[in-house]
Amino acid sequence: MNQIVVFSGSAHPQFADAICDHLGIRRSPADTQRFSNDCLQVQLLDNCRQRDVYIVQPLVPPTQDHLMELLLMVDAARGASAASITVVIPHYAYARSDKKDASRISIGGRLVADLLETAGVNRVVTMTLHAPQVHGFFAVPLDHLTGLGELADYFRGTDLTDAVVVSPDFGNAKTASQFARLLGLPVAAGSKQRKADDRVVIDAIVGDVAGKRAIVLDDEIATGGSILELVSMLQQQGVTDVSVACTHGLFTGKAVERLRDHPGIREVVTTDTVPAPKDWPELRVRSVAPLFAEAIARIHAGESVSSLFDGVDPTHAPPQPKLPL
Amino acid sequence: MNQIVVFSGSAHPQFADAICDHLGIRRSPADTQRFSNDCLQVQLLDNCRQRDVYIVQPLVPPTQDHLMELLLMVDAARGASAASITVVIPHYAYARSDKKDASRISIGGRLVADLLETAGVNRVVTMTLHAPQVHGFFAVPLDHLTGLGELADYFRGTDLTDAVVVSPDFGNAKTASQFARLLGLPVAAGSKQRKADDRVVIDAIVGDVAGKRAIVLDDEIATGGSILELVSMLQQQGVTDVSVACTHGLFTGKAVERLRDHPGIREVVTTDTVPAPKDWPELRVRSVAPLFAEAIARIHAGESVSSLFDGVDPTHAPPQPKLPL
Amino acid sequence: MNQIVVFSGSAHPQFADAICDHLGIRRSPADTQRFSNDCLQVQLLDNCRQRDVYIVQPLVPPTQDHLMELLLMVDAARGASAASITVVIPHYAYARSDKKDASRISIGGRLVADLLETAGVNRVVTMTLHAPQVHGFFAVPLDHLTGLGELADYFRGTDLTDAVVVSPDFGNAKTASQFARLLGLPVAAGSKQRKADDRVVIDAIVGDVAGKRAIVLDDEIATGGSILELVSMLQQQGVTDVSVACTHGLFTGKAVERLRDHPGIREVVTTDTVPAPKDWPELRVRSVAPLFAEAIARIHAGESVSSLFDGVDPTHAPPQPKLPL
Amino acid sequence: MNQIVVFSGSAHPQFADAICDHLGIRRSPADTQRFSNDCLQVQLLDNCRQRDVYIVQPLVPPTQDHLMELLLMVDAARGASAASITVVIPHYAYARSDKKDASRISIGGRLVADLLETAGVNRVVTMTLHAPQVHGFFAVPLDHLTGLGELADYFRGTDLTDAVVVSPDFGNAKTASQFARLLGLPVAAGSKQRKADDRVVIDAIVGDVAGKRAIVLDDEIATGGSILELVSMLQQQGVTDVSVACTHGLFTGKAVERLRDHPGIREVVTTDTVPAPKDWPELRVRSVAPLFAEAIARIHAGESVSSLFDGVDPTHAPPQPKLPL
Amino acid sequence: MNQIVVFSGSAHPQFADAICDHLGIRRSPADTQRFSNDCLQVQLLDNCRQRDVYIVQPLVPPTQDHLMELLLMVDAARGASAASITVVIPHYAYARSDKKDASRISIGGRLVADLLETAGVNRVVTMTLHAPQVHGFFAVPLDHLTGLGELADYFRGTDLTDAVVVSPDFGNAKTASQFARLLGLPVAAGSKQRKADDRVVIDAIVGDVAGKRAIVLDDEIATGGSILELVSMLQQQGVTDVSVACTHGLFTGKAVERLRDHPGIREVVTTDTVPAPKDWPELRVRSVAPLFAEAIARIHAGESVSSLFDGVDPTHAPPQPKLPL
Amino acid sequence: MNQIVVFSGSAHPQFADAICDHLGIRRSPADTQRFSNDCLQVQLLDNCRQRDVYIVQPLVPPTQDHLMELLLMVDAARGASAASITVVIPHYAYARSDKKDASRISIGGRLVADLLETAGVNRVVTMTLHAPQVHGFFAVPLDHLTGLGELADYFRGTDLTDAVVVSPDFGNAKTASQFARLLGLPVAAGSKQRKADDRVVIDAIVGDVAGKRAIVLDDEIATGGSILELVSMLQQQGVTDVSVACTHGLFTGKAVERLRDHPGIREVVTTDTVPAPKDWPELRVRSVAPLFAEAIARIHAGESVSSLFDGVDPTHAPPQPKLPL
Repeated sequence: MNQIVVFSGSAHPQFADAICDHLGIRRSPADTQRFSNDCLQVQLLDNCRQRDVYIVQPLVPPTQDHLMELLLMVDAARGASAASITVVIPHYAYARSDKKDASRISIGGRLVADLLETAGVNRVVTMTLHAPQVHGFFAVPLDHLTGLGELADYFRGTDLTDAVVVSPDFGNAKTASQFARLLGLPVAAGSKQRKADDRVVIDAIVGDVAGKRAIVLDDEIATGGSILELVSMLQQQGVTDVSVACTHGLFTGKAVERLRDHPGIREVVTTDTVPAPKDWPELRVRSVAPLFAEAIARIHAGESVSSLFDGVDPTHAPPQPKLPL
Repeated sequence: MNQIVVFSGSAHPQFADAICDHLGIRRSPADTQRFSNDCLQVQLLDNCRQRDVYIVQPLVPPTQDHLMELLLMVDAARGASAASITVVIPHYAYARSDKKDASRISIGGRLVADLLETAGVNRVVTMTLHAPQVHGFFAVPLDHLTGLGELADYFRGTDLTDAVVVSPDFGNAKTASQFARLLGLPVAAGSKQRKADDRVVIDAIVGDVAGKRAIVLDDEIATGGSILELVSMLQQQGVTDVSVACTHGLFTGKAVERLRDHPGIREVVTTDTVPAPKDWPELRVRSVAPLFAEAIARIHAGESVSSLFDGVDPTHAPPQPKLPL
Repeated sequence: MNQIVVFSGSAHPQFADAICDHLGIRRSPADTQRFSNDCLQVQLLDNCRQRDVYIVQPLVPPTQDHLMELLLMVDAARGASAASITVVIPHYAYARSDKKDASRISIGGRLVADLLETAGVNRVVTMTLHAPQVHGFFAVPLDHLTGLGELADYFRGTDLTDAVVVSPDFGNAKTASQFARLLGLPVAAGSKQRKADDRVVIDAIVGDVAGKRAIVLDDEIATGGSILELVSMLQQQGVTDVSVACTHGLFTGKAVERLRDHPGIREVVTTDTVPAPKDWPELRVRSVAPLFAEAIARIHAGESVSSLFDGVDPTHAPPQPKLPL
Repeated sequence: MNQIVVFSGSAHPQFADAICDHLGIRRSPADTQRFSNDCLQVQLLDNCRQRDVYIVQPLVPPTQDHLMELLLMVDAARGASAASITVVIPHYAYARSDKKDASRISIGGRLVADLLETAGVNRVVTMTLHAPQVHGFFAVPLDHLTGLGELADYFRGTDLTDAVVVSPDFGNAKTASQFARLLGLPVAAGSKQRKADDRVVIDAIVGDVAGKRAIVLDDEIATGGSILELVSMLQQQGVTDVSVACTHGLFTGKAVERLRDHPGIREVVTTDTVPAPKDWPELRVRSVAPLFAEAIARIHAGESVSSLFDGVDPTHAPPQPKLPL
Repeated sequence: MNQIVVFSGSAHPQFADAICDHLGIRRSPADTQRFSNDCLQVQLLDNCRQRDVYIVQPLVPPTQDHLMELLLMVDAARGASAASITVVIPHYAYARSDKKDASRISIGGRLVADLLETAGVNRVVTMTLHAPQVHGFFAVPLDHLTGLGELADYFRGTDLTDAVVVSPDFGNAKTASQFARLLGLPVAAGSKQRKADDRVVIDAIVGDVAGKRAIVLDDEIATGGSILELVSMLQQQGVTDVSVACTHGLFTGKAVERLRDHPGIREVVTTDTVPAPKDWPELRVRSVAPLFAEAIARIHAGESVSSLFDGVDPTHAPPQPKLPL
Repeated sequence: MNQIVVFSGSAHPQFADAICDHLGIRRSPADTQRFSNDCLQVQLLDNCRQRDVYIVQPLVPPTQDHLMELLLMVDAARGASAASITVVIPHYAYARSDKKDASRISIGGRLVADLLETAGVNRVVTMTLHAPQVHGFFAVPLDHLTGLGELADYFRGTDLTDAVVVSPDFGNAKTASQFARLLGLPVAAGSKQRKADDRVVIDAIVGDVAGKRAIVLDDEIATGGSILELVSMLQQQGVTDVSVACTHGLFTGKAVERLRDHPGIREVVTTDTVPAPKDWPELRVRSVAPLFAEAIARIHAGESVSSLFDGVDPTHAPPQPKLPL
């Protein structure tokens, strides 16, 4: 069995450290330089030869720099004769570019998957892709983890009377209804419409929400614009109280002040797939680093990762077809 | 400009003929043999050298035979020095295998895309993929046509008072709401749940349907099982009358008798991307062959295909961002 | 050393079981589903991670379904992080499509090799390819086993006085003369001619057969048409008695009744690379499962497979150049 | 339609010139240098940009130098933005390495095909591959010409009374029987056996030759050793007179003196796919340059190459299935 | 002949406009969006189908954003069925990462070349790569232009008495001596040494410079640090006056103020491969857009690009081996 | 850990033996045959299955034969299921073709790298590439060793008073100044100019050499022409005595007599990356086989190869950035 070596890019070293702590190993250092012409260079500062190399990097802003840093690290590991290279991308942001909703655009989620493969990636570990089909953009094996169990754990500890899970749009509604089932709640969804002037607005709520508490679930929150729009719409329809949950809490632009101080939002719950914003102590962050660490340990030991969500605690994942022991 | 040559596999030669009629060309013959060990061989019976070859084949049952026949034709055209090879797959059935909803299964939609590329495909023309993300499974250019306009045209000629568009599940709900907007109608969706015994059932309707006429829209209907389940659920919720529309009307198993004779179903509307079942004269089939022919003509002339749905008739496609002339 | 996992497709699970018995391991289950649109899905029901996965599937009728099932299993194993994927194809039927004997056809044997590689195959184990050159169609390592030794063992137990080995055509004549040498017999061959009407007929026997007993050897027998034609021709030339031997005994169409009941055919001998026909108890089937099991054991142990036919029993293979120990 | 540019490597510029004469174009110059460390460099001395480039080079001794020169020319043409690159390899010598007849050898015919593809070849034009399956070693389109018609033309002008076509071994017997049918003659074949000491000897003639004139046909003659062995064996069996024909007349080592002066050999007939040996004025060389020129002209005009052998003169190729006009 | 379409990324649209002006065509618009999670999306706003698409983008800061924008545009053009995609990268900044001068780093110049190929690039046009070997990092055809002629033209108009061309290091010395020959001047070079503390310093001038005017030539100037160090060293050795010339004048960090106001530097001369810094009116910028436009015109017309520097004006390029007309 | 198997091609078996001696293993035999049509075939005569295979072959004359022999061995090892294939190419002669210094030539160093990858190479170990950028021509991991330490060791044992290291041209000057620093000496370089008649001459020495002893350093010496020219130029400038050192001492053509007997050359020092010429007992050859053996041992043990030159003896390599232990 090869030795494990874990590197981190610049995007979220705390998350890599948390994984390493759970694995009981030291994170290997890497040195990223920015040349005066703005080109990057990364030197991996531990031997990679015949090792199983893991590189941890969520694609968070500045996204292009973090992506290129990751590609350079992968290529460096390959050139250094790594036995295998697994990229651990807790948040694969380009998954949002998953279809061609206008002419002559790139499907960025597929392009970035191909770039990673070109650089030398052998396996991907990620969490909550924007759409499950994005898995199929990768030719290399991909372990797709879910943080729904962690988020459900949080709400299971709260009063769920008269609560309803609400998806901001139909695209996320399947996940929302999985989440609702974990909590034993009904589900509703916003219906979006593209306006003549190219803005997209939520023009209706499909499902019964009047007089209820809403738990809004989304995969990623960036500026929080559509969440705020949804909250307004829910309030118009008689929702009394809103909790917001998401796997990837980027909170870019004015998101922190808009969400933190919003009178209609009781709380915001997220995970640590991306660095938490500063100045928001009330944000509730559930760590998924143990899940990633366990997945890596199983990959290394040649054990099933899918069964990670099996048996012990049914809330940690959607039900899986049973396999023989 | 190279000459066009159009071949058809065995799956749906009438559709290839309809395309050729619109293009004003003769369909080129091909001869498929089945050897005594059940292996297939196809001979293309027109010169392909330096031609732009189009091969028309929807993936309908027997699906594996039609797929292999298509792969053999593509490989034969490549070996015969075709300038380019475009496969016209009006119904890409493997698109339903678009995600990994159980451990250790193949994402068949990606695999088949890769097989086609291996055989030598340079471009794909298809209609209404099960999910728009499937577009990203293909590394080669793909023109993704929509038949929604044809289906909407039909209903625009009928009485739409008190009608609501209903999607059988959330996965198709975005398309259903596009369709609803083309008709100026509201939208609702079935909520599916996976039962402990691995059956999936529709356990709720999200959205207001009581006392309304439903137009159920799905991308593909095979045995019709989930449509029938949805119709029952709608009737329980007070729906008075159901029309069913789909792009790909396979109607396999007992679908014809179950749908044709169902007292609650007023009518079934589909297109000709797949061969129509026999013995169902009441089935309303709208031809999309003119759309495919026009797309091929534009590909050949180097004109925009996306603008095919632009301007002239806004109902034939979801709104597109405007491009400069 | 990785753990071995052996799966079987639907084509010939008995053969996979026989291999597993010899290896002393349990065959891992797989679940093949056919969706209502006739697309296939296969779930591998044992952990593949870091395992050396073997998938057993001869390409027998329905050939296209068995091929696609195999491709889906390979892709599933790859996506499940198998350490290596070896396909065990006891009968590679598409090997018959090994050259371009007409314009604008595919060389199917090469195409299928490429499809397997695209799906993720790392190694192939097969037996008696229609032509030895087909080995070169594969870019991945291939272990090419021979069943001639098993067939020779049978005949060595019979009276070989005045016998001659006869190949139905020149293409198979080299193999026939190897077989003849194993038995110490002379060889003859049918000469085929393509008729104006595209039928191929045997128009002559090259070599001396009058008054002799013939052992006809072919690689594959499907409908048995050309064997019967050869038998007639041999009888015209004074052959008194015919035995028929082949590696791959498909016996499709009317082959069973035509061969079983033919007065001029003393016996038919074959191996179990493909399932034996029912209702033919007299068919003599020699099992090559032990050879496949031994090859797999040696692959796993990193031992030479070619030396499998070396030394112990010279009749089990054509002579090999000697290697140092 | 792009412009044609024809280059020649060092192997056989006369043949390239003959092709160019038939095409009515000037051969473009190329300059091959050998550096002092024995590395080669080739400069193409005509513009290749957007041209259809043809490079003529049979793989004759020194074979490795000619192969590397060809690879360098192809790569240079690719780097110079050629629209397409066709290699014209009248004699593809590595086709003899077409199977794995010993452990741990390369199938050189496949390897060289892959090397050519890596260098940038888009299409191959060649003649009389050692085995027709070698066609399947190439992933790029290949036009496989035959010179049998030219050789048959020669013999049709001679007295064929009591003649028989003889193949030196079973591997070439199919081609020999095609040739025999073109001339209306019977066929026979040598049977080779591998001796314990690794020598291969002809130990029998299968078919009736006593008292006849033999026309021995092989694809390639190098040292002529097995031809001479065959001639001795034929003489022992009462053959009165032998003519020898081959497509690729290399005549290496002592072949010229052994064949030219052999009392039992009436004449040797070959084509100009390789340079003719000096000092052998009696050698009868039929030029196939017109066939290659016509093939190139048809490729360029997008016309069928297979139909080159169709209709006009049935002796120039084996019968082809008829295609609609 | 296909139609040309020229797009520009955000890096240097003025340069793209200058090229288009010379070509007499309109630049096609593209719309780049930055999503709230910092992912980029680019829509090409002109039809690409069957067009020869050119995308102009030097890799200037923010380099990673410009690189990703370029990759997305290339992928979009490919998906939109462009006939060919040429990237025009006037300054390929990652060329400085051209070797492995420390363990476990990526050779970024090769990696980016591979990424571009993955995205779908068919051809590259660039100028003055940091090392000529970087050409070999690209598998696709690359036209490597030089701006030395433009820079030489400038100095030819000045007093060159007692001048010497100085290269900052040995790596650039070959180019400096080409430049010196164009001007009829001698050459000298700085000798760099890596200090124990990982700083690189110029520790000597190799060649005679005392009492002379120096023309310092480098390929790229970013912060100008090593230029300033060289100027100090030259002054110590008695150089009276320094002119600075470079192809790629990035002038990042404090370069403008440091170079513009330096008392020992008479003038700085550069080209417009990258945007000129603001607030430096004295900077002498020679446009190479006409060279790029002419190269594109020749590529389009299928004419030789290398001969662009041939004949007319020998100062515009190093001497080329003569080709026949 | 897999077993190591070391094969040698025909080029330099003594070097392979020296490596094996240091590793304490037996070299595995291989049998190279040249067929009568000059095609090569190599049989590897030891089991490769699951072994880490190393194949030793410098690219020395006859270079094309040795290259093809190497490609065939690699392909044979791949087909024989080697776990990994490392080619050990002590002298990679095609590295001299590292840029496009004329139109329409191949960059041979990149082409050969691609050919090796096509044949199945997984890793390369080599020494002193002509330019460090050539490393970037390889997509597979490459360990680039240096023999400078061995050469420096030799000179460290001699009187270095008034010595200067001289590079024949600027291209090699960086390496020469590394070497000079190892010896604590100054550096100078020849300046080459391409003459109108395509000859390249050394027209100046840049740096101070008058009255000094010169140590001329080059990477490869073939005919020795430019070394002799440099010696004359040095003598004209007052150099009193010349030593010559190079890594790759090919000494082709008249090199031996020209260098051995030259009155101005005190001694020639080289390594054993290529076979030493006969009849030159005075040639001083330092063996680098121990370095290669140690590199292989570290590769096999998964230890760092770069640290091979670290710490113990600073003269054995250019200084490396320090890594944490």
